[in-house]
Amino acid sequence: MLADQHFLRIPGPTPIPPSVQRAMSQPMIGHRGSETSELLRTIQPRLRKVFGTTQDVVIVTGSGTSGLEAAVVNTVNPADEVLVIVTGAFGARFVKICEAYGIVVHQLTVEWGKAFDVKDVQAVVQNNPAIKAVFATYCETSTGVMNPVHLLAQTVKEVSDALIIVDGVSCVGGVETKMDDWGIDVIVTGTQKAFMLPAGLTFIAVSEKAWNRIENNSNRGFYLDLVKYKSNLAKDTTPFTPALSLLFGLHEALKMMEAEGLDEVYARHKLMKEMTRAAFKALAIPLLTTDEDAADTVTAVSPEDFDAELFRKTIKSEFGLTVAGGQEHLKGKIFRVGHMGYCSPADVLQTIAMIEIGLVKSGKQIEIGKGVAAAQKIYVAQGATN
Amino acid sequence: MLADQHFLRIPGPTPIPPSVQRAMSQPMIGHRGSETSELLRTIQPRLRKVFGTTQDVVIVTGSGTSGLEAAVVNTVNPADEVLVIVTGAFGARFVKICEAYGIVVHQLTVEWGKAFDVKDVQAVVQNNPAIKAVFATYCETSTGVMNPVHLLAQTVKEVSDALIIVDGVSCVGGVETKMDDWGIDVIVTGTQKAFMLPAGLTFIAVSEKAWNRIENNSNRGFYLDLVKYKSNLAKDTTPFTPALSLLFGLHEALKMMEAEGLDEVYARHKLMKEMTRAAFKALAIPLLTTDEDAADTVTAVSPEDFDAELFRKTIKSEFGLTVAGGQEHLKGKIFRVGHMGYCSPADVLQTIAMIEIGLVKSGKQIEIGKGVAAAQKIYVAQGATN
Repeated sequence: MLADQHFLRIPGPTPIPPSVQRAMSQPMIGHRGSETSELLRTIQPRLRKVFGTTQDVVIVTGSGTSGLEAAVVNTVNPADEVLVIVTGAFGARFVKICEAYGIVVHQLTVEWGKAFDVKDVQAVVQNNPAIKAVFATYCETSTGVMNPVHLLAQTVKEVSDALIIVDGVSCVGGVETKMDDWGIDVIVTGTQKAFMLPAGLTFIAVSEKAWNRIENNSNRGFYLDLVKYKSNLAKDTTPFTPALSLLFGLHEALKMMEAEGLDEVYARHKLMKEMTRAAFKALAIPLLTTDEDAADTVTAVSPEDFDAELFRKTIKSEFGLTVAGGQEHLKGKIFRVGHMGYCSPADVLQTIAMIEIGLVKSGKQIEIGKGVAAAQKIYVAQGATN
Repeated sequence: MLADQHFLRIPGPTPIPPSVQRAMSQPMIGHRGSETSELLRTIQPRLRKVFGTTQDVVIVTGSGTSGLEAAVVNTVNPADEVLVIVTGAFGARFVKICEAYGIVVHQLTVEWGKAFDVKDVQAVVQNNPAIKAVFATYCETSTGVMNPVHLLAQTVKEVSDALIIVDGVSCVGGVETKMDDWGIDVIVTGTQKAFMLPAGLTFIAVSEKAWNRIENNSNRGFYLDLVKYKSNLAKDTTPFTPALSLLFGLHEALKMMEAEGLDEVYARHKLMKEMTRAAFKALAIPLLTTDEDAADTVTAVSPEDFDAELFRKTIKSEFGLTVAGGQEHLKGKIFRVGHMGYCSPADVLQTIAMIEIGLVKSGKQIEIGKGVAAAQKIYVAQGATN
């Protein structure tokens, strides 16, 4: 195996573009100086476009989970009622965060591998008028499902004025997100997915309605108190020392996304999903989700007649190719192929070619090349450019 | 001015060594894979040595303040009584964090620029037996004071079993820290100071006594719940996606500190302090602190007859040299020169030489070269090597 070659095709962390790496290697600057203010000022309008909002987007130094916790602690209080829609491991994480704060959680649990139905959400909210916030997952990383969050707010708003709070960690930046048009109140994401960066920053976009709720909440913690970030952002600064190298990288990544064009970025992710799904279908290997529910950023594969873990070990040792396994009760039963961020249709073709060889080497009978050809045909049919 | 040359001499963020930059530029890896476990396993024993403890040191993705908040929320609860020793802006931050959680705060306030006296602390604790924890600052960044935390625990323990919790953000890694020997229960630090890294990770070392308190506390929040980090660390992993590029860099920085030798690292910081102080004394420019109270990592200077802000602007535009201003009521009244992390005695000489020219250019009468010579003499007298 060629030394020092690795193909990271998990649903985050994702590979880092060389130009982003170079940007992150810039020497340190004073975090209270004018260069940092200028950096925050340049980042902000670009970030707003990615979220589809005219509101400022708060940047917190932390893992994505700290952003999810910020969304909880700023908007609701102990003993408040909320609805959490659980479509997989990350929906379940919202439940755990709420329970850690003594919040009363109604759960709408959907079979892993399926998206939620907004009508079911509406029914729960209608039957429980005390619900103050609805928590949903945009892309459920653990199952490769993309939930219909674009329809969520309008449906809930027919019966309730609960806040709509969305975990967008594993897709925002790679799929269309129109927070303002869709009526979403809070969207959270992290840097290590479609933003093409290492983990370490979390972004929290907040609607005017949610800011009103937050500013009237006197119990917001300290480090995750979003009002501190908002008032500092108004002065182009941050309340606490930010992870500057990640801000350098973020600036470069946003410039890359702008140069490609956000619509083109989203079209590329959709194409990569379709190529990946076409390949597994051509190889007659079952997918966990339907076409309708499938995420643009990660594809979950559900082998019936070969060992997912043996297959993952084989491609890792053969090519340095890493795909993700299943989580919780899907552990050992599925594997997940990431196709987001710094990943192109050409990368998808290479990944599928390696996967085919890995299948053969782990004893699965396939017609070699058939998956790659199916993906190539999708690419050609769409008249796409890499 | 030579393009692209900057001298960052603030008390953090500090410059990043090239080898650490290179380490941080490694391609991403799976955060649940064996490489990440191996990385955490190699980091842990080195980190313990820096803290002077045999306990595991928790690593959280976040600014230093998230580490301070973790130290609060894991050990005490709303309505509990604590003592916060306030010697400057970072002591005051502990007060704000505690108050955000409804904790009852006794304050021992010391004039900014002076260290606390452990006998005063003992008296407050003795008079208030309900105090469950004492919060102190090791190096108070805002004033350049190093507090006698090495004497704190033994003095408090004569009258109370309160936990001793220390903010070590702007010095641990640059000055001797013997957590176990000194009887400290929790020490927090960040990456952007003596650890020679960008901001983004915070380290929390916890004594066995404090772990007992924490594990019996059912109200620890979610993201900052230290028990989650401890139980994951036992399996060489983290509860949430870590800032991997910073872990790569941390590994390299710890190797650098080990290669130099921790005692030599500490001696270098002490020498840089003595050189810096000798220079300002030779120039007859007052220092904010006494020799006894002065920190090894940052020196606060208190000009009487020139404008600190004009001086700072002058050296920035002339050389790209950044030193820090004062905070809160010391704003405009002092400036602070950082000498920690990736900073050598030779860098101190260069900094002083630039400062002398900046003083002359901002209208202050000095005998040029006298500060540099005084610093050089200290270096020679100590028989030091750069």
